[in-house]
Order: sequence, then structure tokens, then C-alpha cells
Amino acid sequence: MDIAFVLYPEVTPLDLVGPLQVLTALSTFEPSYRTVVVSAEPGPVATDLPLTLVGSSTFSAVPDPYMVVVPGGLGTFKHLADAALLSYVRSASRAVSVCTGSLILGAAGLLSGRRATSHWAVLDALGAYGAIPVAERWVSDGPVTTAAGVSAGIDVALHLAEELAGADVARQVQLAIEYEPEPPLAWDGVDRAALEEPLRRALRSAAGLEF
Amino acid sequence: MDIAFVLYPEVTPLDLVGPLQVLTALSTFEPSYRTVVVSAEPGPVATDLPLTLVGSSTFSAVPDPYMVVVPGGLGTFKHLADAALLSYVRSASRAVSVCTGSLILGAAGLLSGRRATSHWAVLDALGAYGAIPVAERWVSDGPVTTAAGVSAGIDVALHLAEELAGADVARQVQLAIEYEPEPPLAWDGVDRAALEEPLRRALRSAAGLEF
Repeated sequence: MDIAFVLYPEVTPLDLVGPLQVLTALSTFEPSYRTVVVSAEPGPVATDLPLTLVGSSTFSAVPDPYMVVVPGGLGTFKHLADAALLSYVRSASRAVSVCTGSLILGAAGLLSGRRATSHWAVLDALGAYGAIPVAERWVSDGPVTTAAGVSAGIDVALHLAEELAGADVARQVQLAIEYEPEPPLAWDGVDRAALEEPLRRALRSAAGLEF
Repeated sequence: MDIAFVLYPEVTPLDLVGPLQVLTALSTFEPSYRTVVVSAEPGPVATDLPLTLVGSSTFSAVPDPYMVVVPGGLGTFKHLADAALLSYVRSASRAVSVCTGSLILGAAGLLSGRRATSHWAVLDALGAYGAIPVAERWVSDGPVTTAAGVSAGIDVALHLAEELAGADVARQVQLAIEYEPEPPLAWDGVDRAALEEPLRRALRSAAGLEF
């Protein structure tokens, strides 16, 4: 069963690589799952980092995957009417997004009436697609699972690994990537809102969101 | 000041992309830092995922960087005598590693007498380079900073962001990548050693480590 990670220009690499590392490790324990990275056309794809990504296949070579995983990034906002991308996302039995990738699921018509999440700075934008925005690390509603911003892709992928192959396999994947996070910065006594607000404006402006 | 991420064949992408996402975000707040991804030669580099990476520059085009960041992966063990790579690593004012990347720092002669860490499954291998192996999320000793396996690159990069630009900038980076991890799998009542031992053997065997 194919787990197809979708690659498009100006993606945020960590959105894609976090869950790809987790679910590719899963596939070594459960070979009935195969991870692929697919783009509309073969060849290099630019990102928001000084790093170019090249997938392993194309949309047409991996039709109707079991699961599609859609990362986010500033490029998301330029691909909300990308017919080939939206059609491919709709062709999967299950859809998963990380960060602003949920807006692509919304644009594909997959979030209508469903609880969903996204990067905190754009969470309200999900409403435009009929979704019910929820501020959670990840949300499953029927065949659609959406995760919060960037690093949340690791958490949701471990959750999916547990669902697909059981807790002991997922724990071995967690051990393999040594996922015992220790975020070094505490928030005690910090005015978080004062840091969030300019960042929210900067991120939304960079995305071309003027609301 | 250049922060150069080193790319070599069969790298583990999350080792590289986690800290690259963090330190590139840092550079948007502090433009005196520039992140680059360098390989010995230009062009695509295979990884342990169905994903190929292309850096932004080469060793010779970014000489004597301020900081070098060395990811790990199964390819590490094939590059412990790679003269161009070891020479480049030695040319930096500061060296950082993620996962088995610390073995490359060791092979470059940077760990002699220094406290250092690595992926838990190969931590003891650091002793061959005169290092003092410690099981911590990350360790700084003089100009050398080493992190534990794969996902630890995000933690160490946020620590470096705090050191380079202060806690408030690092917190904004942490917000930008929404790094509020929620590993879904608990260890309560689980025989962790029983899961670790076969995984340790499998990882060491895949790396060609027969000790």
C-alpha cells in the first residue's frame, strides 16, 4: 500500500521529512507499506531552505495511493487552485496534512464539515473551506488527519504508525529516530502573545494572506 | 557568518533538515548568519529515504565556515576516511553533529578528550576517537557540540539559536516551527530493553558495525 508524500514548489522540508522518516522506518517493519515522494513532474523542486528536493516518482506513476501526506509551506498558497495536485490528493483513500498543507486538503474539498487543524498562524483560514478549526496537535475526522505546524508532522506520523502497525512497532520507530524531545526554551514568565503577534503578521504577509 | 550543513551520500534527511529549518529561520531574524548546504561536488545526493537532496553550494565555494553541521545516517560509516569531508569539517570555527555525525567529528580528530554524544545505538563507538561518551540530548565541549539521534537535531539547533541570537529570537523560531512536541507513545509498563536490543543489533548491522 502506497503512502505518497506530495512534493510541490516552496514546500517547508521539515513538514515532509519528519513524517517521511517515521513512515519509511515503519515500512522496514511492515513491508506491506511503501513510502514514495511524488511530484507532478519528475525533477528538482525548490523549497524555503537552501536545499532542493527530488522525489522518487510522479503523480501519474503512483495513482490512487492508500494514503497521501501533504506538507505545508509558503508555496501552499500558490497551489490552492492547482488542479493536478488537488485531483491527486482526492484520489487517495486517506489524506494527511502537516502545517498549511491542510489548506490544500480544504481546497480539494476534503474538509467540509470536518474538524481540522493547521499552523497556529493560519488556523482560522480553514473556515473558508467549511472546516471546523481546532487548536490540537493533530486531529482525525473520518479519512482525513490534519496536524499542526511543521514539527507536528513527527507526532502525527508516529500516531499513524501506531494505528497501522501497532504500538510496539511505533515505539521501535520512535527509538530509531530517538524521539525524546527536549525543547530548550521555557515560557515561564514570558509574554508569549507579544512574540506571537508580530510573527503571525510576518508569516501571513509572507504567505500573501491579507486578512 | 556561514553555517554550513554538510551533505554526503546516504545521509538521514531528518538529521539535516531539522536543524536547517531552525537555523534558516534564525537567519531571517539575524541576517548576519547565512545557512548553506554544501557537498563535495554539486548535484543530487541519495539518502536513506525515497528522496534525493541537492545542496546549495560546495565545500570549495564556502571555505572556512563559522560553523559546520554534520548529520548522520548509514552513509556515515562509509565516510569516516573521506579526506575532503574531514578536512572541510576541520576548517570550521565550530563543529556541530547530529546522530552518527559525531563519528565524523571523531574521525576528523575533533573529539579527543571531549565529552560527546551520538545515536544511542552507537554511542560506545565514540570511544575509539578518544571521546568521553555521554548519554545526553546534546553536549557542548569547547567549540564542538554533538547531539543524540535524528530528532535531537531540532533541540540542539534551538539551543544554538538561543546562544547566537538570544532567547526571544529562539522562542520565535520555536513558534514558527510550532515545536511543542507530543510524542504519542508512552513507555509505562513497556519492556523498553526488549524493544531496544533487536533494534540496536539491526541498526549496527545495517551500518556494518560488527562489535
